[in-house]
Amino acid sequence: MNTGLSVAIVGATGAVGKEFLRLFESRGFPVGKLTLLASERSTGKTEIFRGKAYRVEAVSKEALQGIDVAFFSAGASRSREFVPAALEAGALVVDNSSAYRTDPAVPLVVPEINADAIGPDNRLVAVPNCSAIILLVAVNPLRKVGTIDRLIVSTYQSASGGGAAMMRLLEDETRAVVNGAELPESPLNTRYAFNLFSHNTAINEFGYNEEEAKVIFESRKILAMPDLKVNITCVRVPVLRAHTESVTVEFAHKAPSIEEIRAVLSTAPGVKLVDDRQANRFPTPLDASGQGEVLVGRIRQDLSNPNAICMLVSGDQLLKGAALNAVQIAESVLGVSRV
Amino acid sequence: MNTGLSVAIVGATGAVGKEFLRLFESRGFPVGKLTLLASERSTGKTEIFRGKAYRVEAVSKEALQGIDVAFFSAGASRSREFVPAALEAGALVVDNSSAYRTDPAVPLVVPEINADAIGPDNRLVAVPNCSAIILLVAVNPLRKVGTIDRLIVSTYQSASGGGAAMMRLLEDETRAVVNGAELPESPLNTRYAFNLFSHNTAINEFGYNEEEAKVIFESRKILAMPDLKVNITCVRVPVLRAHTESVTVEFAHKAPSIEEIRAVLSTAPGVKLVDDRQANRFPTPLDASGQGEVLVGRIRQDLSNPNAICMLVSGDQLLKGAALNAVQIAESVLGVSRV
Repeated sequence: MNTGLSVAIVGATGAVGKEFLRLFESRGFPVGKLTLLASERSTGKTEIFRGKAYRVEAVSKEALQGIDVAFFSAGASRSREFVPAALEAGALVVDNSSAYRTDPAVPLVVPEINADAIGPDNRLVAVPNCSAIILLVAVNPLRKVGTIDRLIVSTYQSASGGGAAMMRLLEDETRAVVNGAELPESPLNTRYAFNLFSHNTAINEFGYNEEEAKVIFESRKILAMPDLKVNITCVRVPVLRAHTESVTVEFAHKAPSIEEIRAVLSTAPGVKLVDDRQANRFPTPLDASGQGEVLVGRIRQDLSNPNAICMLVSGDQLLKGAALNAVQIAESVLGVSRV
Repeated sequence: MNTGLSVAIVGATGAVGKEFLRLFESRGFPVGKLTLLASERSTGKTEIFRGKAYRVEAVSKEALQGIDVAFFSAGASRSREFVPAALEAGALVVDNSSAYRTDPAVPLVVPEINADAIGPDNRLVAVPNCSAIILLVAVNPLRKVGTIDRLIVSTYQSASGGGAAMMRLLEDETRAVVNGAELPESPLNTRYAFNLFSHNTAINEFGYNEEEAKVIFESRKILAMPDLKVNITCVRVPVLRAHTESVTVEFAHKAPSIEEIRAVLSTAPGVKLVDDRQANRFPTPLDASGQGEVLVGRIRQDLSNPNAICMLVSGDQLLKGAALNAVQIAESVLGVSRV
């Protein structure tokens, strides 16, 4: 058991935490010792890894001693509290929260795009917002065939972005509605079952919610395009675990042909083309669920602007939008290649 | 019973057909004699109006004799077959299908916008596509404060756009999924429950589905702006009866202020402002369901273009998107004012 790395997951019982365990197994991530950490509330729960039950312990500075790689996925405030201790203990930290994303000293990484943003001294790497990752995996390859000027995005975001609790809420509410039963209690200000709503985060002075503000800032940082124009509307839809995005890409010049776009996307890392006009088969969140790749289709000329193209993108929020991207970052830093 | 008009509904047993009956009652539409017509398949069913049961008869040329006002909502092919007979019989025909929308001789009308497109000799008026109506009720008032150059729209369309059968499919599939039962048979090429998909109509040579092509053409015709630029993506979401649309309006000049936009929308006919940033209350399809007004909110400056603003719009597809708009057209032509 002592060959391999000492790996910790902070937030091990969450929806993303569970995906880490599956990915470690499926990708052969070199876990020697596994430490599962979470808030007091989840202490004592067990999770299974390689057929063995692991007890979840309370996260603390002491629990982070001796860790080689720590994956944080327990929210921004917990990251702010415990990431420094993990770094002091010498761990490589991959942080799934928003705590350090805007810090100029912390690389914000989608490995297919900017693995090279991680310098030899970076021991803390931030995982971008899920909507930003899924968007940019599809958009970045287009820079090979044109100069991007502006992105126009409307999201169709799944419950999983709100964690396991929101996925359960959607299922419980939906069961109540179809069975004519009383609705369960909800932290939302509207019903979720058979409904949709503007992303339920605080609205800033410009009228943008936190999710939208993240996508704008993070897209610019990841692509290293500080002046990139981003028009974004984030909406939560009653889908369980994959985000879909309606994307228009405006170039600084006449748009590349649809054939050029398809050609560059068909070989782009992390992208799977699903674009069959004849059969009306395009990306759906159900097809994207459980897949590591981002599905891209409905690729077409924007009829309102000769410089623009449109597409529809779906990606698993828990995988490429979170856990998978984090594991890929660690693999990239450690020089571990996937089995 | 013989004071009032002889009114026929063709497609009386459909989701829209049933809404006509409710609207006739709630608006005091002057129905003297009521004739309910449908395809052979539905003949013999009964529908209730003003407490009395009416038998549904098979639509035929004979059945349309003596009708003063005929509301058609039984699909384009049935309209093509029977609208001429209704017109010959002297009826005012309000057609909810796409059959005559592109005919330059037939006015395509959203009464709040272009009731004046109906001339004294027009006995046939077409009801626009539901997504186009809901979009334009929100967009048209903005012409008072600016010159619109381009619309950028992503839709979140409900099951009701596919009729009563698709609403039932969504409910039945969802019940099966939450109960772990076998999925019912479906005409779709993907599951609908907890999923979404690009609008399931044929894709044209430019990569646009029929719904998108309708919104582009019809927006130009209704607004009498033949050169209006429209970027549109139509997506079906697992919501029952109201369509939501993420809309960016680009002006030919610097965008009006948010205050100006709000002011003009707050008094616009058919519009209800739902735009509370503090409380995070914006339009939802559940709130729009059963309402005659189109809900508009998330009004904000497009941060990527000084000439543009963004908003979120929800409207009941069966009401303003179909039956209500049709009844309003008839009221407008007949000079009947709402009770």
